[in-house]
Amino acid sequence: MFEAAELGRTVSKKTYAEKEPILRTALLEAQQRLRKLPFPVIIIVSGVEGAGKGEVVNELNRWFDTRGVQTHAFWDESDEELERPKFWRFWRKLPPKSTIGIMFGSWYTESIIERVFRNLSRAEFESELDRICEFERLLSNDGALIVKFWFHMTKKTQQKRLKQDRKNGKPSPLLKVFSKNYARFRSVSELAIRATDTGFSPWHIIESEDRRYRNLAVGETLLSAIRRRLDAPNPTVPLSQPDDSLVTDIPEASATLLDKLDLTPELSRSDYEDRLSAAQNRLRTLAWQAYKAQINTVCVFEGWDAAGKGGAIRRITGAIDARLYRVISIAAPTEEEQAQHYLWRFWRQLPRAGYCTIYDRSWYGRVLVERVEGFSAHHEWSRAYAEINDFEQQLTDTGTVLLKFWLHISPEKQLQRFEERKRTPWKQHKITDEDWRNRDRWDQYKHAVNDMVARTSTSYAPWVLVPANDKWFARVHVVETCCDQLEAALE
Amino acid sequence: MFEAAELGRTVSKKTYAEKEPILRTALLEAQQRLRKLPFPVIIIVSGVEGAGKGEVVNELNRWFDTRGVQTHAFWDESDEELERPKFWRFWRKLPPKSTIGIMFGSWYTESIIERVFRNLSRAEFESELDRICEFERLLSNDGALIVKFWFHMTKKTQQKRLKQDRKNGKPSPLLKVFSKNYARFRSVSELAIRATDTGFSPWHIIESEDRRYRNLAVGETLLSAIRRRLDAPNPTVPLSQPDDSLVTDIPEASATLLDKLDLTPELSRSDYEDRLSAAQNRLRTLAWQAYKAQINTVCVFEGWDAAGKGGAIRRITGAIDARLYRVISIAAPTEEEQAQHYLWRFWRQLPRAGYCTIYDRSWYGRVLVERVEGFSAHHEWSRAYAEINDFEQQLTDTGTVLLKFWLHISPEKQLQRFEERKRTPWKQHKITDEDWRNRDRWDQYKHAVNDMVARTSTSYAPWVLVPANDKWFARVHVVETCCDQLEAALE
Repeated sequence: MFEAAELGRTVSKKTYAEKEPILRTALLEAQQRLRKLPFPVIIIVSGVEGAGKGEVVNELNRWFDTRGVQTHAFWDESDEELERPKFWRFWRKLPPKSTIGIMFGSWYTESIIERVFRNLSRAEFESELDRICEFERLLSNDGALIVKFWFHMTKKTQQKRLKQDRKNGKPSPLLKVFSKNYARFRSVSELAIRATDTGFSPWHIIESEDRRYRNLAVGETLLSAIRRRLDAPNPTVPLSQPDDSLVTDIPEASATLLDKLDLTPELSRSDYEDRLSAAQNRLRTLAWQAYKAQINTVCVFEGWDAAGKGGAIRRITGAIDARLYRVISIAAPTEEEQAQHYLWRFWRQLPRAGYCTIYDRSWYGRVLVERVEGFSAHHEWSRAYAEINDFEQQLTDTGTVLLKFWLHISPEKQLQRFEERKRTPWKQHKITDEDWRNRDRWDQYKHAVNDMVARTSTSYAPWVLVPANDKWFARVHVVETCCDQLEAALE
Repeated sequence: MFEAAELGRTVSKKTYAEKEPILRTALLEAQQRLRKLPFPVIIIVSGVEGAGKGEVVNELNRWFDTRGVQTHAFWDESDEELERPKFWRFWRKLPPKSTIGIMFGSWYTESIIERVFRNLSRAEFESELDRICEFERLLSNDGALIVKFWFHMTKKTQQKRLKQDRKNGKPSPLLKVFSKNYARFRSVSELAIRATDTGFSPWHIIESEDRRYRNLAVGETLLSAIRRRLDAPNPTVPLSQPDDSLVTDIPEASATLLDKLDLTPELSRSDYEDRLSAAQNRLRTLAWQAYKAQINTVCVFEGWDAAGKGGAIRRITGAIDARLYRVISIAAPTEEEQAQHYLWRFWRQLPRAGYCTIYDRSWYGRVLVERVEGFSAHHEWSRAYAEINDFEQQLTDTGTVLLKFWLHISPEKQLQRFEERKRTPWKQHKITDEDWRNRDRWDQYKHAVNDMVARTSTSYAPWVLVPANDKWFARVHVVETCCDQLEAALE
């Protein structure tokens, strides 16, 4: 999830100097209009320690007319607060209608911290998140517009901030604690965001390495969220359509995960042959060990047309005993499948304990081809992310090793392979008009892939983005990853 | 919650013989229409052991055309099923579009049983319920109509069934185990129903002491649920409005909790004075003990006009030190309160640790006066039950003693008191045109009170229905109940 907010987005001084005054004026205008409408705006500021949440709060207070804006910081609870149910402190600070409330630290803070330090069990934490969802649903049902920001930065940058702080003689004790527990904090936060990223109260993850990018991204996200409500036919009724993107991208510095993937890795013929045959031998043994240990494996292959999915799959199946795997090629659903929920046909093919199922294309069709080609309505594909995450969690909760590969090539490489196919008689069947049509929508697909990775790359089922301009490198990378993951599961 | 399904509803042989053929024909007709529409109907059959779930399943199969109906019983998991994620067994049995699936035992069964025998912690159980909600949401979003039945019977009747079974020489081992754990099963089930009673997938609790009532109630509920979808402008889109009543009531044998409350209890003057002064002395001491133990108390008073709420409250406040309590009379909200969620004004008045707040009328106005008078829209008051349950759970989770009194009188007694007030100069101010207007809506209020009790009488915050035709009895009953509850909390 957070990978998509580690792309090094920046905004230049010049751009910032141009954009910031326009943004500011627009925010003030929006605030003026809000004054006449009976709903509050609740802004939640949370995220990684050291990402500049305090600076953002100051910036927001500078941008808005402070009449009609309240900022509340939630740190230590007062004795007054401790003597009442936990949410009392939030109820008392809720902004009234027509005003803006900035929540610096919020109903998320305590639960996340308690979970990081294991004072809450996983199930208790999920119960807390459930209560938070109910609270936000209640506010939203009552008309509140909730805008939730998560400020993200990498461990490396956090360490750098820590060093800077020390140099400046103002080491923050919180920052120190959190940077020690960065990985744990990251995985707990991921769960929290996933469980509470709802249509009525979506999250916006802001890449925060660059201050100017961060501020601009916050301002523009906020502006568009408020405006969308103000411009709705009935502004007091909450809109329940989630944003397309979990991770905020602004035109000034847009980037996708695919743009940042290094496509240069390649292997020589002899390296390829050596490493492939070593990896396949490993995989052969591991597959039998998994069978004995009753561990299921599910491999998912997605990627551009002509990225080499089939070739990679054959390198896996070439290694595993034929009794142990099945390859499911996903084409149009059967009549029987069409009479069911779209996930039904994947559930029915799940492997028994010890076996392996390889999906050549998968349930991700819902958020890729069906989204881009308009085969699914917005409300259908947008809720699919959560449905998929839940499905995959059920798989991994029962011990399944789940591997998800996206095979990535450049558009130039695709063109080259298409033309090769046209020229080679036994490959001509592989290329259809549809492939050319898909190619025209490259940018839309790229956007959809980015959202897919941001929303469904989870700690329990991360995406593996495979540079596949060089087929040899891609195949070896896939087989070796399978080995590594199986090995880890067997330990 | 279950109190409202223990009212002894019955249907006579004659009525059943008249109604059943009509119902059957109508169900068949509905099934015919379903055949042409692309959504499935999922019927969940669950509830207390011995309530006749098997008989209901047989009856449904007799009523419907069995082509297009599948019945699935979920008992022991097969080895096939154990080797895959838990929900796999349900996915494989889902009915395709245009057909009906009867689920005998379901995704609820295992979690409830595991929780009854404490193999799941409270938080783990809540996580499971959450997963169930997500599963039903997914099905419903895809068009499925889910009709969930919970068959309820009292412990007494269950014991009777057990004896009968023994006599007939076919003692059911399950029935024996469950009747031993009746109370625990009841409280676990209550939580499960409350957490999963959603707009898209509501529960129907069926009183099951009388077979004919039970069957007729099931058939009619099912018929109206299917018809509502079939008659909707767009039948493939799930309706998200919950039913008004959690506990099913059919015209053939309608009953409310208030109808069944015995209003005859009364006290003589001397008994009243003795018991009241004893109870007040107890309460005085207990209030100080609660203060020392830092236990909060919240008392809620609701009831008919002229039922004697004020008098009962004064008997409490007369006993407690004035520093320890506050009485909040709920009138129209202030301007400040109107700019917030309707629960906000109750949150802000919550007592500090050790203190007591008495609400003269309360948050229940939302589902009583606001519902009946139409001050709130259907979607507002219908979601208030869940909001209130959650609010009260937060109170009791933090150790608050929460007491909810409904003071009940007969319409005749109310008339008598109204006229008395008119005649007594210092009481005339107490009676307004509004009181007479409310009186005209007695039946609507009675219905609303019944729903309120069914949906918000929980194990952690049960309603106390007080027979108040005799003021003396009502006051003593209220003060003594306060004492008992405080004493229990102090132990």
